[in-house]
Amino acid sequence: MPDVALFGAGRIGRIHAGNIAVQPGLRLRYVVDVNTAAAGELAAAFAASAVDVERALADPEVAAVVIAASTSMHAELITRAARAGKAIFCEKPVAADLDAARACAAVAAEAGVACMIGFQRRFDPTFAALKRRLDAGEIGAPEVVVLTSRDPAPPPLDYLKQSGGVFKDMLIHDFDVCRWLLADEIVEIYATGACLSPDAAQAHDLDTAAVTLRSRRGRLCVINTSRHAAYGYDQRIEVLGAGGMLQAGNHRPTEVISSRAAMVSGDPPEPFFLERYRRAYALEMIHFADLLGARAQPVPGLVDGIKALELAEFATRSWREGRALNCLI
Amino acid sequence: MPDVALFGAGRIGRIHAGNIAVQPGLRLRYVVDVNTAAAGELAAAFAASAVDVERALADPEVAAVVIAASTSMHAELITRAARAGKAIFCEKPVAADLDAARACAAVAAEAGVACMIGFQRRFDPTFAALKRRLDAGEIGAPEVVVLTSRDPAPPPLDYLKQSGGVFKDMLIHDFDVCRWLLADEIVEIYATGACLSPDAAQAHDLDTAAVTLRSRRGRLCVINTSRHAAYGYDQRIEVLGAGGMLQAGNHRPTEVISSRAAMVSGDPPEPFFLERYRRAYALEMIHFADLLGARAQPVPGLVDGIKALELAEFATRSWREGRALNCLI
Amino acid sequence: MPDVALFGAGRIGRIHAGNIAVQPGLRLRYVVDVNTAAAGELAAAFAASAVDVERALADPEVAAVVIAASTSMHAELITRAARAGKAIFCEKPVAADLDAARACAAVAAEAGVACMIGFQRRFDPTFAALKRRLDAGEIGAPEVVVLTSRDPAPPPLDYLKQSGGVFKDMLIHDFDVCRWLLADEIVEIYATGACLSPDAAQAHDLDTAAVTLRSRRGRLCVINTSRHAAYGYDQRIEVLGAGGMLQAGNHRPTEVISSRAAMVSGDPPEPFFLERYRRAYALEMIHFADLLGARAQPVPGLVDGIKALELAEFATRSWREGRALNCLI
Amino acid sequence: MPDVALFGAGRIGRIHAGNIAVQPGLRLRYVVDVNTAAAGELAAAFAASAVDVERALADPEVAAVVIAASTSMHAELITRAARAGKAIFCEKPVAADLDAARACAAVAAEAGVACMIGFQRRFDPTFAALKRRLDAGEIGAPEVVVLTSRDPAPPPLDYLKQSGGVFKDMLIHDFDVCRWLLADEIVEIYATGACLSPDAAQAHDLDTAAVTLRSRRGRLCVINTSRHAAYGYDQRIEVLGAGGMLQAGNHRPTEVISSRAAMVSGDPPEPFFLERYRRAYALEMIHFADLLGARAQPVPGLVDGIKALELAEFATRSWREGRALNCLI
Repeated sequence: MPDVALFGAGRIGRIHAGNIAVQPGLRLRYVVDVNTAAAGELAAAFAASAVDVERALADPEVAAVVIAASTSMHAELITRAARAGKAIFCEKPVAADLDAARACAAVAAEAGVACMIGFQRRFDPTFAALKRRLDAGEIGAPEVVVLTSRDPAPPPLDYLKQSGGVFKDMLIHDFDVCRWLLADEIVEIYATGACLSPDAAQAHDLDTAAVTLRSRRGRLCVINTSRHAAYGYDQRIEVLGAGGMLQAGNHRPTEVISSRAAMVSGDPPEPFFLERYRRAYALEMIHFADLLGARAQPVPGLVDGIKALELAEFATRSWREGRALNCLI
Repeated sequence: MPDVALFGAGRIGRIHAGNIAVQPGLRLRYVVDVNTAAAGELAAAFAASAVDVERALADPEVAAVVIAASTSMHAELITRAARAGKAIFCEKPVAADLDAARACAAVAAEAGVACMIGFQRRFDPTFAALKRRLDAGEIGAPEVVVLTSRDPAPPPLDYLKQSGGVFKDMLIHDFDVCRWLLADEIVEIYATGACLSPDAAQAHDLDTAAVTLRSRRGRLCVINTSRHAAYGYDQRIEVLGAGGMLQAGNHRPTEVISSRAAMVSGDPPEPFFLERYRRAYALEMIHFADLLGARAQPVPGLVDGIKALELAEFATRSWREGRALNCLI
Repeated sequence: MPDVALFGAGRIGRIHAGNIAVQPGLRLRYVVDVNTAAAGELAAAFAASAVDVERALADPEVAAVVIAASTSMHAELITRAARAGKAIFCEKPVAADLDAARACAAVAAEAGVACMIGFQRRFDPTFAALKRRLDAGEIGAPEVVVLTSRDPAPPPLDYLKQSGGVFKDMLIHDFDVCRWLLADEIVEIYATGACLSPDAAQAHDLDTAAVTLRSRRGRLCVINTSRHAAYGYDQRIEVLGAGGMLQAGNHRPTEVISSRAAMVSGDPPEPFFLERYRRAYALEMIHFADLLGARAQPVPGLVDGIKALELAEFATRSWREGRALNCLI
Repeated sequence: MPDVALFGAGRIGRIHAGNIAVQPGLRLRYVVDVNTAAAGELAAAFAASAVDVERALADPEVAAVVIAASTSMHAELITRAARAGKAIFCEKPVAADLDAARACAAVAAEAGVACMIGFQRRFDPTFAALKRRLDAGEIGAPEVVVLTSRDPAPPPLDYLKQSGGVFKDMLIHDFDVCRWLLADEIVEIYATGACLSPDAAQAHDLDTAAVTLRSRRGRLCVINTSRHAAYGYDQRIEVLGAGGMLQAGNHRPTEVISSRAAMVSGDPPEPFFLERYRRAYALEMIHFADLLGARAQPVPGLVDGIKALELAEFATRSWREGRALNCLI
């Protein structure tokens, strides 16, 4: 049973810890965090040890690492883990900027280690079923993808300021979903948006955005995003194909419907990503464990992480320059 | 173009007047009502004349009558119209009691006139589509029918007192729907209920009822009814068949969905029968006009009206005696 | 009761004829069409006379005209009717090109006649309810409008070739809906698309398009369109506001739901615009009749028709030039 | 951490084993089954030991037992565990017949041990939310409860023959749900049904049933059941109250909607109880663990198990005798 070292004892780190623990193919051995108290507490809950990076990577029993540290650490941790010959699961984004992402991808390639990127939406049961049915030809070739991707409330200003902007921080997931669904590369992108909250303005960022992408084969993808959907976490996919349409709706906490004088009402969507993608997080870790046995190159992998990051940078530039951009530089 | 005499200038009479007027195959010629002012006003709106029963039935140009007078007048008007050789459309119920209903049916049979009963639910587009698909075998043989039949608010006490009771007044429609869907006769009935409002108590009636029917071929039908569904007029059908289920849902005024912090909400059902069955009333009159040309015996006809009335009387007895009854007397 | 002259005896002309006929405030007096057989037949069905343009406009009893002739005739008919002092209802678009539209608007202004443009979607009960609730503040200020506007099947190649292109032919409705919902003018537009059918290619047109619009107050609108949605006529509105979301869904022929082994299914949307907007066509004619009495300037009026046409031309240019355009020329 | 002994290594036993294992407050210590191979395998998977009843009950570290053995063993195991002073979780039904159920309840009462009955539906998130909102007064006092309770396919004939009949085997859950929702006792019951499959006939049982219950305060409950719903496991609750209606719909595997030429379709319900109530099984075990700490008398407890069994017996008699029965004997 391969031992796993987990980097990052924050919110998403805890999710991964739990999923590693219940996964028969994996054993959580180490938790690493600069916040040693958090690392210790999380390690204790799962009978693991809190250690530093050196120690975790030096242990030959550790076959895999899960990187859930802050974005600024991703590239360095991937590089070091790759050099230590560990299989890698890394949260998105690969790195804070493209150069760093490409550099660590080169190291991973040279080391020949597997590196899976945590685009968990691909593992959501509803999204994955839509993709399977699309690939099975249920609606013919895809023609238009419409992605609705809205957070319930914006993060604090401090987070916004260092987030890299809405395209890198939020839409990077949607860029990955777009490429995944279309199974095609993007050749043109146009991004625009609005800044409707003081915080977004202070962070020189957008809080509302619309992006249009066109793929090599002429398929369109339109994404609309907001940082503040009052009714909850809104994550929907719609694919129009030559023979019909597939839609992936939101999940709800319960299936209760209430009918009263003025209205018939149901639950709003799951409140945020931890609830909405709970199952997806579990399934991506199962997938990672499966890869360890198979020694296959993972999908989504580093190339997917880099492509999504490229699109986020193109979108940012398109917005700032106020024009559509050719992505085939 | 056959002339039509309309008996009854009340709420439902006005509906029929409008549907006769726009029907290319019919012309509204006379309106008859003991309330001569109401008759005059309605006649004027449709370029018809307000006359008395004799005059209307004596006119040889009048080929058909539409009876929307009070229930107490139904049997007499059917009898007189039949003897005058007119085709008849009569609102449910055929008569206030079974003997009168059977007597006027005998007269109509002897006169050889067509007599259609206004069970408009059979013409509702949603219910009719369900029935067509059921008959086409989409879910195999029907096994269980579940009818939900709830009014938004009870009628005034005066109406309740002379209504004949909830089974004759409200459920007579459901008994017809039950027979229509199952295409089978009922052999056993059990009715129970509750009296939750002071008015129903004063009228020695129920305002909430549950009826179970078993048909000759062993199919079940369960009906649940209330006189006061706070959220509107609730009219649903569910048929479980050997191969699946067909459900007919409520109609809504609009398809607007509102998502806010606490809930996702849509329109409640159409408020009451005039809105819910607006299209059904138009379609039943088109059906009646078609029958005039074809000289066919109408469905639903007098026999359906009498069967539904029989079931209403059995249900009333079952409730009062507190036991299941064999309907094959 | 004001007499009405109807120009155009085609499909949409017949719809208007029927709605004029049942409208208590209007009387259909003349039908005019270069196809005199069609004009004669339609006139006969409604007890009107088939005449030529001169005759219809010369009759002083004719207070209003309804223009449902081919687009190439719109400007001339508006101009002549305005000079004759008639109130005007004209199908969209105002004219085949902007210059002609502006010229006839000038004539109408000088003549002081009312001119309503047939943007019937504003009268659809579902869309109108959404607009009312938006204006009532149910979800706060609108931030993003998402319009889905898909036809079930493309028109014949001959029609496509002279249609003016997808933006003028199809999306002109959506541009009007966008302005109507946002109650704001557009300052920037970006349009792109794909040409996935041989016919569209031969017509040098798109059959799939995505348009992004930004308004003066920074609201976004994204429209996605296809000429061939295999599942029917797909007409949806979604408005994200500061306090929630309003969505207007498709209408269905019936509310039947079928549950079988593999799936739970319901009706697809109404097949095409004649079914989907049947009620809207009736309501816009009621609105026009009301205006005749009130002598108010109609909404949507010529200015709305011209603005929508401007946006269609900007969208066409944006697509051809491959860049976002400033609409505040 | 209290040790738990699990009796029964079958399908439902495995579910409980997994839920005990991940429950921080419990430790699975023993697995007991007459099929020692099954017991051994299950014990091994959870680092427990396969032993016999004596051994398990003799261990003073064992604070609680979970009984998932065959129904015929329930009463004996409850009795022995109670005498050994263990807290008890027992699958429904309490016993194969009422006398045995009452006898072991007496032993448990004398021993003063907690005994929770596995009516897991009370813990289903959707049903529990409905109950919470009902109790919070959202729709006023309940007036009519409609339960739809249908299995996807009948069990094998062997099972049917020893199942105790559809009322004890299937509807016992619904009788518990009825009492739970109404918070009232039943005073009258009427059950009827049909036998539409050869197997049910051979087992002298029904496969389709309709039950009507009336409570002390005059509330109605109607239950309709089938052993073979072709579209899946159909488990719905509807409560009409004085101020509105609450409905609990089915859960679906995914939220994908497919729109094609003929229909718009979504997922059928979860296939069967292991999927539908997966979360409910987990939550009832959490509730049981919480009880161990609190030493409270559990709800649902033995009294609920006995009441449901009584209603199942009344229903069976009502059906056999063809009449409504007073349950207050």
